[in-house]
Amino acid sequence: MTRTDGREADQLRAISIERGWSTQAEGSALISFGDTRVLCTASFTNGVPRWLTGKGKGWVTAEYAMLPRATNSRMDRESVKGRIGGRTHEISRLIGRSLRAVVDTKALGENTIVIDCDVLQADGGTRTAAITGAYVALVDAIEWGREHKFIAQKATPLIDSVAAVSVGIIDGTPMLDLAYVEDVRAETDMNVVVTGRGLFVEVQGTAEGVPFDRAELDSLLDLALGGATQLSAVQRAALES
Amino acid sequence: MTRTDGREADQLRAISIERGWSTQAEGSALISFGDTRVLCTASFTNGVPRWLTGKGKGWVTAEYAMLPRATNSRMDRESVKGRIGGRTHEISRLIGRSLRAVVDTKALGENTIVIDCDVLQADGGTRTAAITGAYVALVDAIEWGREHKFIAQKATPLIDSVAAVSVGIIDGTPMLDLAYVEDVRAETDMNVVVTGRGLFVEVQGTAEGVPFDRAELDSLLDLALGGATQLSAVQRAALES
Amino acid sequence: MTRTDGREADQLRAISIERGWSTQAEGSALISFGDTRVLCTASFTNGVPRWLTGKGKGWVTAEYAMLPRATNSRMDRESVKGRIGGRTHEISRLIGRSLRAVVDTKALGENTIVIDCDVLQADGGTRTAAITGAYVALVDAIEWGREHKFIAQKATPLIDSVAAVSVGIIDGTPMLDLAYVEDVRAETDMNVVVTGRGLFVEVQGTAEGVPFDRAELDSLLDLALGGATQLSAVQRAALES
Amino acid sequence: MTRTDGREADQLRAISIERGWSTQAEGSALISFGDTRVLCTASFTNGVPRWLTGKGKGWVTAEYAMLPRATNSRMDRESVKGRIGGRTHEISRLIGRSLRAVVDTKALGENTIVIDCDVLQADGGTRTAAITGAYVALVDAIEWGREHKFIAQKATPLIDSVAAVSVGIIDGTPMLDLAYVEDVRAETDMNVVVTGRGLFVEVQGTAEGVPFDRAELDSLLDLALGGATQLSAVQRAALES
Amino acid sequence: MTRTDGREADQLRAISIERGWSTQAEGSALISFGDTRVLCTASFTNGVPRWLTGKGKGWVTAEYAMLPRATNSRMDRESVKGRIGGRTHEISRLIGRSLRAVVDTKALGENTIVIDCDVLQADGGTRTAAITGAYVALVDAIEWGREHKFIAQKATPLIDSVAAVSVGIIDGTPMLDLAYVEDVRAETDMNVVVTGRGLFVEVQGTAEGVPFDRAELDSLLDLALGGATQLSAVQRAALES
Amino acid sequence: MTRTDGREADQLRAISIERGWSTQAEGSALISFGDTRVLCTASFTNGVPRWLTGKGKGWVTAEYAMLPRATNSRMDRESVKGRIGGRTHEISRLIGRSLRAVVDTKALGENTIVIDCDVLQADGGTRTAAITGAYVALVDAIEWGREHKFIAQKATPLIDSVAAVSVGIIDGTPMLDLAYVEDVRAETDMNVVVTGRGLFVEVQGTAEGVPFDRAELDSLLDLALGGATQLSAVQRAALES
Repeated sequence: MTRTDGREADQLRAISIERGWSTQAEGSALISFGDTRVLCTASFTNGVPRWLTGKGKGWVTAEYAMLPRATNSRMDRESVKGRIGGRTHEISRLIGRSLRAVVDTKALGENTIVIDCDVLQADGGTRTAAITGAYVALVDAIEWGREHKFIAQKATPLIDSVAAVSVGIIDGTPMLDLAYVEDVRAETDMNVVVTGRGLFVEVQGTAEGVPFDRAELDSLLDLALGGATQLSAVQRAALES
Repeated sequence: MTRTDGREADQLRAISIERGWSTQAEGSALISFGDTRVLCTASFTNGVPRWLTGKGKGWVTAEYAMLPRATNSRMDRESVKGRIGGRTHEISRLIGRSLRAVVDTKALGENTIVIDCDVLQADGGTRTAAITGAYVALVDAIEWGREHKFIAQKATPLIDSVAAVSVGIIDGTPMLDLAYVEDVRAETDMNVVVTGRGLFVEVQGTAEGVPFDRAELDSLLDLALGGATQLSAVQRAALES
Repeated sequence: MTRTDGREADQLRAISIERGWSTQAEGSALISFGDTRVLCTASFTNGVPRWLTGKGKGWVTAEYAMLPRATNSRMDRESVKGRIGGRTHEISRLIGRSLRAVVDTKALGENTIVIDCDVLQADGGTRTAAITGAYVALVDAIEWGREHKFIAQKATPLIDSVAAVSVGIIDGTPMLDLAYVEDVRAETDMNVVVTGRGLFVEVQGTAEGVPFDRAELDSLLDLALGGATQLSAVQRAALES
Repeated sequence: MTRTDGREADQLRAISIERGWSTQAEGSALISFGDTRVLCTASFTNGVPRWLTGKGKGWVTAEYAMLPRATNSRMDRESVKGRIGGRTHEISRLIGRSLRAVVDTKALGENTIVIDCDVLQADGGTRTAAITGAYVALVDAIEWGREHKFIAQKATPLIDSVAAVSVGIIDGTPMLDLAYVEDVRAETDMNVVVTGRGLFVEVQGTAEGVPFDRAELDSLLDLALGGATQLSAVQRAALES
Repeated sequence: MTRTDGREADQLRAISIERGWSTQAEGSALISFGDTRVLCTASFTNGVPRWLTGKGKGWVTAEYAMLPRATNSRMDRESVKGRIGGRTHEISRLIGRSLRAVVDTKALGENTIVIDCDVLQADGGTRTAAITGAYVALVDAIEWGREHKFIAQKATPLIDSVAAVSVGIIDGTPMLDLAYVEDVRAETDMNVVVTGRGLFVEVQGTAEGVPFDRAELDSLLDLALGGATQLSAVQRAALES
Repeated sequence: MTRTDGREADQLRAISIERGWSTQAEGSALISFGDTRVLCTASFTNGVPRWLTGKGKGWVTAEYAMLPRATNSRMDRESVKGRIGGRTHEISRLIGRSLRAVVDTKALGENTIVIDCDVLQADGGTRTAAITGAYVALVDAIEWGREHKFIAQKATPLIDSVAAVSVGIIDGTPMLDLAYVEDVRAETDMNVVVTGRGLFVEVQGTAEGVPFDRAELDSLLDLALGGATQLSAVQRAALES
C-alpha cells in the first residue's frame, strides 16, 4: 500500500517554517506542509477587548481564511459574498482555542494577540498547518511584547507548545498528514491538536464514509501523537534559528 | 462527589421524546434532556438541490437555532444581527453529518429531507439532544416518503440509528450528559455521536481548561458509549409507540 | 353557510393559554388559537436603552418570528437569508405598539421588557394569538419585576389588558378568527386590537380582493369587539390560575 | 381651535401634482401635500416575474424611500446601513396593495409596473401623498403600455382610481391631513386609502396615545372620506391637463 | 462634425442651479446639466466624528446616490440589494475629496457638513454636476453655521470654489460635457475637477476604448479648463442671486 | 533632497517578479515593489458570464484585497465586516479596466480570466504593483488557454503590455514610485497606467493637500512614463525567463 506521493503511512510531508516572513507583524511564520502554504501573522496590541477590561488577563484569538485561488478551482471571496462560511468560522475558533490552551492569560497581562492564518495555497491539512505555524508567530509576538515592556520580564505566558496534524483511514489503512487527494478519499478524518508534552487539546474525528470502531480510533490517536512529536521538533528548530 | 441534581456520574437526565408534535411537518419530535427542550421537524421534498440532480441520490441536511430566550439571559436573534454565528454554523453542520452517516442516499432516491432543530429551552447538551431527536423526526419523514411513493417500497434508506451525548471531566471526575451548570465548570468537554450498533460517527473533545491525557480520553469514551446505548433504547421506544 | 371546521361565523377557535411554559423567562405563555401555537416569553431587564436613559420611563418592545416549518411548506430562515422580511418587521412593530398602549411607562420605571413571540405552528391568526399571549407573559414579567424590587410596590404599570383577533369577509359573510384556509379566501381581512375595556388600539383592515364599504366595515368591527371580549376572559382565567 | 398653519380641521393642505416630471419614466408625478414632496415614477416592462409567468396576469408593485435629508435632521441612508427598515417595508407594501386594489391584472396582461415613490421632502403624510401621486404615474404608464401595444386596445386595466389621506385626533379634535408637527402630537393616527367610488382599500388606525372608542373611529372615517373625494378631483384635473 | 444636440465640441449643455430648493437642509441646490438633475443638500451639525474630536478641525464628507428610475431603464435600489456598489462608493469619495480641497478645516472649526447628492434624473455627467452643485450647497451651509455662531465671524473656511466637468474623445474629436449618448461612444473619458483659480483637484482619465497619447491628454485638459471657468461663473451667479 | 531610502527622485524601488509562484493557478506572479508584495493569480475558465454569452467575446476581471496584517497596524477583514470598502472596490475596478485595455476580447474567445491580487505586505504602491504583476499572470493564463485549445492557435488576445506606477509631489519635488512614508506626505498623488508602447490607459491624479497646476501635472506625467518604461522591461525579463 503506497501513498500517491510515495510516503509511508506514518510519514509527514516535507514541513518547513519560514519564521519572520512579514516585516510588519510582531510575529510571523510562513509554514508549508508539502504544497499547503499558510501565512501566519501575530498582531500584538496593548489592552484587551471591553468585556475583559480590568480582569488582569490577556486575550488570544485567531482568524483563518483562504485566498480565492488557493485551491484547484477558484472560490468566491467571503468578503464579496458578504458573509463568512461555516467552515471558516469553525476553523478560526479551533485555532483560537488551541492557542489559548497553552497560554496563561494572567501572565500575558492585559494584552491582545490576534493571529491571522491566511492560506496562500491549499493541498489538505490547512487547519493543522495553521495551528502549527500560528504557535511560532505567537511565540515571537510574546517576545516582542516582553521587549517592549508590555509583558513582565519574569512572566511565562506560554505554558507549553502546541501543534496539530490530521490523520485518516483510507482503504482501511490509518495514515498520517493527509494531502488533498487522500483527504477526499478518507473514510474517517481526524484532526488532533497536541501539546509539546503530548497532551490532547482537541480531538475531532468524523466518519466521512462508514462509522469507525474503538480500535480504529485508537490507532489514529497513536499516529497523531507520533506526528505531533515531529512537528514540535520542527517548531523548536525554527524558534532556535 | 454528588452532582447538582443528585445524579450519578454515569446517569443521564430524564429523557423524553414527544413524537409527532407538529401537525405540519412530515416528521417531528419534541425532545427533552432534563430542562433542555428541542423541537425537531423533518421536511420532506421530492427532488434534490441542483448540484445533486441526476445522480440518483438523495440529500439530508440540518439547521440548528435557538430561540432568543431559550437561555437564562436573552440573546439577540441571528436574523436581527443579519448573520449566523460560528457556533450555530458548527452545530448545524454537525447534526447534518451525523444524520447522513446513517442514511443510504441511494436508497433515499432523489428526495431531500431538511431537519430543523430549534432549541425552545436550553440547559446544556442542546446539540446532543438535537441529534437524538432529529433521528426520530427523520425516521418518520422517510416513512412519509415511502407512503407517498417517493421512496421505493423495498428501499432501506436507514442503515443504522444515531444518537449523541455529552461527557466531560469536572474536578477530575468524568461525567455523563452535562447540564449547563456542569458544562461551564468542565475542564474537558466532549460530544460523541454513536450509532445504534455502537460505532462512532463523531468524537469532538475539547480541553476547555487543562489538556487531557490518553487515559482520561478513554474513560470519557466509555461513559459516552454507555449513555448512547440508553438513548438508542429511548428512541426505539418512541418509534414503537 | 358553514365553516370548514364547523364553527359559527362569530365563534372563536379553541383557545388555550399555558402560562409559565418557560423555566428561563420572567414571564411566558404558550398560546393556541386552534392549531396556531405561539410561544411568548417576556424578558425583564433593569435599565433602559441609551436613548431613554434618565427620563424615568421604562420600555416595552416585541419581536415576532416563525420557525421555518411552522407552516405547511418549509420557509427559509431569516437568519440564513441575512435579513428580516417586511412582514416580520410589520408584525413585530404591531405587537410592540399594542402592548405599549396598555403600559404606563412611568409606573414601569427604568426597566425594559422584551417580548419574544415565536410561532411554533401556524394556522392563521399568528399575530393576533401573539398579542393575546404576549399580554399574559407581560403581566408575569411585571410581577417578577415587582417581587425583585425593580418596580415600586404601589406602582400600576398596567392600565388595561389587551387582546387581538382577526375578522374577515368570506363569500360576503363576515367571520371571526380566520383559520389559514379561510384567510387565503377572504375578500377583506382585518386585525383588531382591543383593550379589556373595549377600546381600540389598532384597526388594520385590508381589501385583499374587492374594496369594502362602510356597512361591511361596521359589521367587522362588531364581530371583532365580541371576539376580543371572549379573549379577555380567557386571559383573566389564565392569570387567575 | 386653530391649526398651526391656519387650516380648518377638515381642510387639506395645498395639493399639487406635476405630471410627467421625469423624461425617463413611462409615467411620473411630483406630488406636493404642503411641504411634503414625493417623486413618483412608474416603470413599465413587458413580462412578469418568474413566479407569475404564463398565468396571463400582470404585476404592480411599489417601493418607497426617503432621501437622507428629506427630514429636519439627516437620517442615515438605508443603502449605507445595508438593510431596509421596518417602516420603509411597511409603507412600500401598503402602496403596492393600494394600487393593486384598483388594477385588473388580467386586463393588464403579462406586464409589470414598478412604482418608485421617493420622498424628496417630508412634512407628514408622505405615505398618503405617495399613494395619491403613484396613481397618476400608474395611469400614464398604462397608457404608455397601450400605445406601445403591450396592452390590448380594448382592455381596461384600471377599474377605479385610488387616493389616500391621513386623519388624526389632536387634543380631542379629529383633523384631516396632518402636517408633521400635528402628527407627533396626535393621540390617534389613521391612514385611509379610498377609491374614487368611495370604497375602502385600507384602514389603518393606531392609538399613539390613548385608545379610541367607536364614536371617534366613526368621525375619523367621515373626515377621511371627505378628504379622499377632494384628492380624487385633483387627480382627475392633473390627468385631464 | 455635429453633436446629437447640436452643440459645439467646446460647448456646455444648458446649466441651471436652483439654490435653496430644500426647506429642510442648511444648504441646498437642484442643479441641471441639460437633462441631468441632481439634488444637493448640505447638512450642518455642530461637532465632529469621534476620530477627529479635540483636534480643532471640521469635517466635510459626501454621499452620492441615484434614484432607481433616474436612468433610462430602472435599476435595483442599493438599499434593497443590501450593499452599495463600487461606482457609488467611488463617486461619493470623489465628491468628498473635491470639496475638502477647497475647505480650510481649521477655519471650519469642530463642525461637520454632510453633502448628499441624489441624482433625480441622469443623462451623463452626474458626478460632475454633483460636485458643481454640492459646492453651492456647501457655501450656504457654511453661512448658516456662521449665522448660528458655530463658525467664527472672521473665519474663512472656503479658500477657493470648485466645479467639475467631463471631457472625452469621440470619433477622434475631443468634446466637452458629454451627454449619456456621447459618453457610451467615447474612446476616452475624463472627469476633471478644477478650482475657481484654475488649479486641478482631480484628473481622472480612462481609456474606455483605445489608449490615448500625450497630445490627446493635453487637448482634453484644455477643454476641461475652459468648461470649468464657465461653471464657476454660473456658481457665482447663483450665489449672488 | 534625498529620499528616506536613499533613492533618486526618478528611481524605482527594487522590483522583482516571481513568476509561477502558485502551483494551482493557470497564471501567477508574486511581485515586489520594495517591501510591497502582491500575489497575483489568474484563473482561466472556459465560458463567459451569462450577460456575455453568445457574443463571441471573452471577459477579464480582477479582484484586489489586502491581508489584515499587510499593513503596519492590523485592519479588520472585509469578510468579517460583511462588506467591501470603497477603496477595495475602486482598486479592483481599476485593475480590471487596465488589463482589459490591452486585451482583444474577440481574440480571447468565450473564455473568462479572473485575476486576484492579494496584498501580502503593503508599503505604498499596492495598486500599481498589482497591475504590473497581474499582467504577467494574465500572459501565462492566456498561454495556458492556448495550450489547452480554448484559444485559437493563431489568435493574439494581447495587443500590448501594461504596467502602472505612482508618482507624487513631496515638498514641491515630483517623485517616482512612492513608498508608504512618502505617500502620506505627498501633496499630490497620481497613479498612471501605461502600455508597453507608451500610451495612457488611466491617469488618476488627486490633490491630497494643495491643488496642482498644469506644469506640475506635466512633470508628474514625464516621471510616470519613464518609470513605466522600466517596469515594462522587468515584465519582459520575467516572461522570457
